[in-house]
Amino acid sequence: MTPTDGDIVITGCNVLVHDDQGRVGFREDAAIVVRDGAVEAVTDAAEVAERPAAERIDARGQVAMPGLVNCHTHAPMVALRGIAEDLPLEEWFNDYVWPVESNLTARDVELGARLACAEMIRAGVTCFADHYFAMDAVASVVAECGLRAHLGEAFFSSHGPEGRERSLEFALRYRGAADGRITTALAPHAPYTVTDADLAATADLAREHGLPVHLHAAENRDQTRASLDRHGVTPIGVLDRTGILATDVLVAHGTGITDDDLPLLRDAPGRVAVATAPRGYLKFAWPDTTPVRALREIGVPVGLATDGAASNNSLDVWESMALTALVQKSTTGDPTWLTSRQALHHATLQSAAAVGLGDRLGTLAPGRRADIVLVDLTGPHTQPVHDLAATLVHSARSFDVRTTMVDGRVLMRDRELLTLDVAPVLEELGGRLPGLVDRGHGRRIQEYDT
Amino acid sequence: MTPTDGDIVITGCNVLVHDDQGRVGFREDAAIVVRDGAVEAVTDAAEVAERPAAERIDARGQVAMPGLVNCHTHAPMVALRGIAEDLPLEEWFNDYVWPVESNLTARDVELGARLACAEMIRAGVTCFADHYFAMDAVASVVAECGLRAHLGEAFFSSHGPEGRERSLEFALRYRGAADGRITTALAPHAPYTVTDADLAATADLAREHGLPVHLHAAENRDQTRASLDRHGVTPIGVLDRTGILATDVLVAHGTGITDDDLPLLRDAPGRVAVATAPRGYLKFAWPDTTPVRALREIGVPVGLATDGAASNNSLDVWESMALTALVQKSTTGDPTWLTSRQALHHATLQSAAAVGLGDRLGTLAPGRRADIVLVDLTGPHTQPVHDLAATLVHSARSFDVRTTMVDGRVLMRDRELLTLDVAPVLEELGGRLPGLVDRGHGRRIQEYDT
Repeated sequence: MTPTDGDIVITGCNVLVHDDQGRVGFREDAAIVVRDGAVEAVTDAAEVAERPAAERIDARGQVAMPGLVNCHTHAPMVALRGIAEDLPLEEWFNDYVWPVESNLTARDVELGARLACAEMIRAGVTCFADHYFAMDAVASVVAECGLRAHLGEAFFSSHGPEGRERSLEFALRYRGAADGRITTALAPHAPYTVTDADLAATADLAREHGLPVHLHAAENRDQTRASLDRHGVTPIGVLDRTGILATDVLVAHGTGITDDDLPLLRDAPGRVAVATAPRGYLKFAWPDTTPVRALREIGVPVGLATDGAASNNSLDVWESMALTALVQKSTTGDPTWLTSRQALHHATLQSAAAVGLGDRLGTLAPGRRADIVLVDLTGPHTQPVHDLAATLVHSARSFDVRTTMVDGRVLMRDRELLTLDVAPVLEELGGRLPGLVDRGHGRRIQEYDT
Repeated sequence: MTPTDGDIVITGCNVLVHDDQGRVGFREDAAIVVRDGAVEAVTDAAEVAERPAAERIDARGQVAMPGLVNCHTHAPMVALRGIAEDLPLEEWFNDYVWPVESNLTARDVELGARLACAEMIRAGVTCFADHYFAMDAVASVVAECGLRAHLGEAFFSSHGPEGRERSLEFALRYRGAADGRITTALAPHAPYTVTDADLAATADLAREHGLPVHLHAAENRDQTRASLDRHGVTPIGVLDRTGILATDVLVAHGTGITDDDLPLLRDAPGRVAVATAPRGYLKFAWPDTTPVRALREIGVPVGLATDGAASNNSLDVWESMALTALVQKSTTGDPTWLTSRQALHHATLQSAAAVGLGDRLGTLAPGRRADIVLVDLTGPHTQPVHDLAATLVHSARSFDVRTTMVDGRVLMRDRELLTLDVAPVLEELGGRLPGLVDRGHGRRIQEYDT
């Protein structure tokens, strides 16, 4: 084999792999060859001892695994981290977030996105599905910092038809941007803020242009009840009757999904996936969490997410992985369910599928994109290792990620960010915060009234 | 003022302080003077500009707060981290933990304790309440590494009277050891493994020798039901009728505490506290968590804990703080309850009170012991700061602790451990693990049968 400039050889690590059933396992003392941004091979250390490479990474004591995917977030909202605490959802939206977002400028979004990308790279996230406003700014940060992203320009029906048109225009313009690292979706906000007619029009546009849809739906039980009261159907029923379920759709949260919704999701003509962000459900004191077990039984992938940092209050998908395991055990009353290997399955193959990249990401196998993180397990809090999957899910933390790589490009090496400079971002953002958080004007971008 | 060799001046930080009602607040751009192992002053930076000191710590961008207290753990069980995953409590005890613990030697305990102390110092824990076997070994590690600890030699009634005698002998011998950093307790295991007669004898010994008691009780709803079935009273009722509630008692877990138990706890003649370790309750899929709100209403302090790493799977009290807030909101259905400031109150004054050190620890005020951690909030995941309490509880992580100090002695500086060398511990422990985890002998130290 002839080395290319881009070749990277990672040696001496345990590699998280999947068997032909997709089950999580580990290959010990292995090596990974990365070539032209893709995984060329996962092999034995001896096989690559003489292999020339532009870069060799000695990863002894580390686990190599697919980078985490944040399947639903609003990255720029890191600027609002901690602005509205210990509140029910309605007050959180109406009294804080939506008034403040009426001040939002593209510059705020760009600075927030830059800070968010720094946070995610440091936490081992290599791809995020973002649903927000002024998304050109987010796309530009993604192009610059090297992350992968699935982006959608959000809209409410209160925006008029222009909202939907902007969402489409964004999705078409940025599809495949940043050397293919950007994929796009149409991004109606939710069935409680977008009319059936607008959802139906969105579904038509999705089909016409071959675009997926990313939206909030059935976020909690109250929304499901309100939808039944007002429309006679659940939010998932709304997605069904408006044709959204005939598109490739990523549903955020779904803690209000009912048993009756399950056949609709199972039989949906499109590819349906759900993103779960359990921290926020606990913090908002919602009575339910995403019904992961029921969704598994009907074959709907569930990806891991953080939601925005104004609710979560971080973009720590590693924590989402652990919390998903813990909360699922607790809510089902079954300690044997959602094992560490299952949690890692959600974090890898299911999250990749959720953002529509199931054929390009999610596992370290030849031909997959080289979105890889190296996790250091030598710290006292991760030793000794009796069960590698449990160590990863329940003992390791996001800060144990030492190296983050996307498309074979190293974005963080030994905890040092290589593509983003945080200090000037914080300085400029700090100066803008008083204007950003001002609520004296009495405006809000939308009203929360499920 | 004349400086002494031990003087430390910390400058430029925000200091977590308590007002005269014990409420959590922050003093900005402040300085702390440490003298002879105690806090001498929390003051303005200008006041200490010329102050001579043996060491000056520039803590700009950091928060100084009381070190975390792990109010209930079994530190040496880090050696078994990940050994028994995704199991109900009964199988966890009977098929794994208690068989393996029948192999335990003092050397295993010492190595485990050393690893655990390294983990805790790195996570900002300055004091831990330990309940285990071969506790001489733990005491010796505590003396060496500089942590503070509240130690008890555990016993079952199946040990015969010797168990209780060893527990007493340990408590008397080590009380006040390690320059006063070690306090001790009598440590019966639990009402389901220790008879009423032995609990009553323990209560007598506690009174006679002025010792507190640390034990598991009402761990979960099943135990409460079983106790009612067998004895006609709840586990808290057992503590009452055996006189344990007339001692100063630290109850681990208490997720099975009933409404009827509350008057017993409220009116207990002794000082009663409860330690909550919510991660394990989720992982074991218990139906309840510690009733923190009800305990608050009757004035019983609730300290934060991790339990042992064989269940939890870490000693990360910072995570316990966040999870306590999240799980309490979720289980009460009230997002306004257990705010970040309340979580910090549990982490500071209530945790100090829980381990009987309410007059020496828990707040950074003149005369309190200088058990201080410095938490770096400059990372992208903790910026910007709109609400310092929320940033600490919901965005910061244990790895943001940069400096850990006990009695004014720096145990970790800029993430470097100064009193423990982990590598030889891991090497020796690794060699001992096959013997430690062997279950082929068919023995177990105790039978779990609530």
